[in-house]
Amino acid sequence: MHSTRFAHLVIRHIKPKTLQNIVNNTTPGTAFGFRRFSAGKVANMKFVQFTYSNNPNEIRVGHLDGDNVIDLNKAVPTLPRTLLEILRNKEMKQIFRLCECVTDAAKLPVSSVNLKAPITGMDKVLCIGLNYKDHCEEQKLTPPEVPMIFSKFASTVVGPSDSVRLRVDVTDKVDWEVELVVVIGKPASNVKAKNAFEYIFGYTVAQDISARDWQKTKNGGQFLLGKSMDTFCPIGPCITTSDEITDPQKLEIKCSVNGVLKQSSCTDQLVHKIPDVIERLSSVMTLLPGDIILTGTPGGVGMYRSPPEYLKPGDLVESTIQDIGTLLVKVEKF
Amino acid sequence: MHSTRFAHLVIRHIKPKTLQNIVNNTTPGTAFGFRRFSAGKVANMKFVQFTYSNNPNEIRVGHLDGDNVIDLNKAVPTLPRTLLEILRNKEMKQIFRLCECVTDAAKLPVSSVNLKAPITGMDKVLCIGLNYKDHCEEQKLTPPEVPMIFSKFASTVVGPSDSVRLRVDVTDKVDWEVELVVVIGKPASNVKAKNAFEYIFGYTVAQDISARDWQKTKNGGQFLLGKSMDTFCPIGPCITTSDEITDPQKLEIKCSVNGVLKQSSCTDQLVHKIPDVIERLSSVMTLLPGDIILTGTPGGVGMYRSPPEYLKPGDLVESTIQDIGTLLVKVEKF
Repeated sequence: MHSTRFAHLVIRHIKPKTLQNIVNNTTPGTAFGFRRFSAGKVANMKFVQFTYSNNPNEIRVGHLDGDNVIDLNKAVPTLPRTLLEILRNKEMKQIFRLCECVTDAAKLPVSSVNLKAPITGMDKVLCIGLNYKDHCEEQKLTPPEVPMIFSKFASTVVGPSDSVRLRVDVTDKVDWEVELVVVIGKPASNVKAKNAFEYIFGYTVAQDISARDWQKTKNGGQFLLGKSMDTFCPIGPCITTSDEITDPQKLEIKCSVNGVLKQSSCTDQLVHKIPDVIERLSSVMTLLPGDIILTGTPGGVGMYRSPPEYLKPGDLVESTIQDIGTLLVKVEKF
Repeated sequence: MHSTRFAHLVIRHIKPKTLQNIVNNTTPGTAFGFRRFSAGKVANMKFVQFTYSNNPNEIRVGHLDGDNVIDLNKAVPTLPRTLLEILRNKEMKQIFRLCECVTDAAKLPVSSVNLKAPITGMDKVLCIGLNYKDHCEEQKLTPPEVPMIFSKFASTVVGPSDSVRLRVDVTDKVDWEVELVVVIGKPASNVKAKNAFEYIFGYTVAQDISARDWQKTKNGGQFLLGKSMDTFCPIGPCITTSDEITDPQKLEIKCSVNGVLKQSSCTDQLVHKIPDVIERLSSVMTLLPGDIILTGTPGGVGMYRSPPEYLKPGDLVESTIQDIGTLLVKVEKF
């Protein structure tokens, strides 16, 4: 963890090399999820979306390659312009092979672009409540027998170069929750747990930002409004494809606020495992390509601290999951 | 109400003239929401989406004109192909004027097309719980002091020529709920109640189909799963634009199942009025063009009948709101 290093930083001031280290979550110079094909090609399986500074409204799809990003839309001009459209139109195996389309002409320093949420516009942002043993303990609750599912709207999704924006006129109880995110790669209906991993495109990091007053007491017990304020779902920095993660349920997961470690756990603490969640969800609805599942947060959220702690404008939230990366988001006033 | 007339029908067998009567919710020959411009043009402000039988995957935008539908994509070839895209790209006033683009070449009998959900792919399907006085009474509940908001996924939206599909292996407690739907026409954040109607594009009819077991007991009290099974949000048959509805809170609202009247009320029974709901929602999130708000259901749902009644494959659900129309949907096994 580099927590203390970033206490004084806001993302636009991060130096190129530092940013790349954040994205890769590695010590400089180490290997970090490259895969070498037998033909000798280097495959970087970390998908991103980004914009160029001179064209901030045009999303491009890329993948990370060391300190560089490959502009896949430049390398493959026929490719759809969003990862969502690619997932809707191509098979996962085809998408994994896009990493072979590396050309020097399409390569540029990651420091020269703005990383955005790696996927947007999905049909579903599903979230699991009370899904870490230690998060249940801090609330003095028994873990639920079945996963408790709630949702956010796709429009709440933001990325590494965006901010969480607080509506300070309606809430001063906004909390952090680092979570491992599953990204669905193909339609899944009535999928059995034993086959569930076949439907996963990859994994990313999220903050399930939560206005505790609206979540708990201001909406008749339904979590939706407390979870779905604008910008309340930062994700990123990249989607690491599923074939790159040996076991998504054995990953370190951490969250720091202003450089102070708040949450530190391992995804092996998940109460309801990813395959079981996919079986249950797909028994009642069809999961679609690009849908994301936030798998729950470990202990250490602000609400159950003594005294409780909440986010305020100016804060910097740093969320790290092993083998994926670090998502760094600023907090601002709406 | 034509309830008894339709008890034996499924929608594909409805004769052209009968279907048009359903859509218009009128006695044949009466005026039904036409507006005559000073120039003498007839403006039909009921927007639909439809497909041609020989091209079932291509959605077209139209408006209803008596027994005919005007193919707006043919009349205005530069127009986006979905109502959502039109709302995202044009101002409401411009869209209202599309009704002037009637050409004989673009006119065809409504019986020759398949009516689909009048809008799809939106960011938000918001729903209000416990929002009719009589629906609270049948549950012996005091109306909530603030609107209770939950949601469905956009992928649950289906239309008049689709079916509600029951996952009979996971639930046998699927219920009906007729609701008036508000369709948002432009981005709305921090909107005051007094200005709320300016943000409404129009109104349609919905069934907030609900698996009561999953809504109430199988998901830790969160309504989402019971409300968001595939096909659980039929809407239509058309969107009547807001300038055509004098007072959306004085409309008759009814639901019949297999020709038997189950719900019959008036939107003046709404506990939380539409402008107040928009003020509250827009204080925590930005409502976007195409977002829909299901405003709650009156008394008479199946769960609170004695004995309780639930939908089964083969049922026909007919939902009518004055000045909008009748939405007729079949129930099938998934």
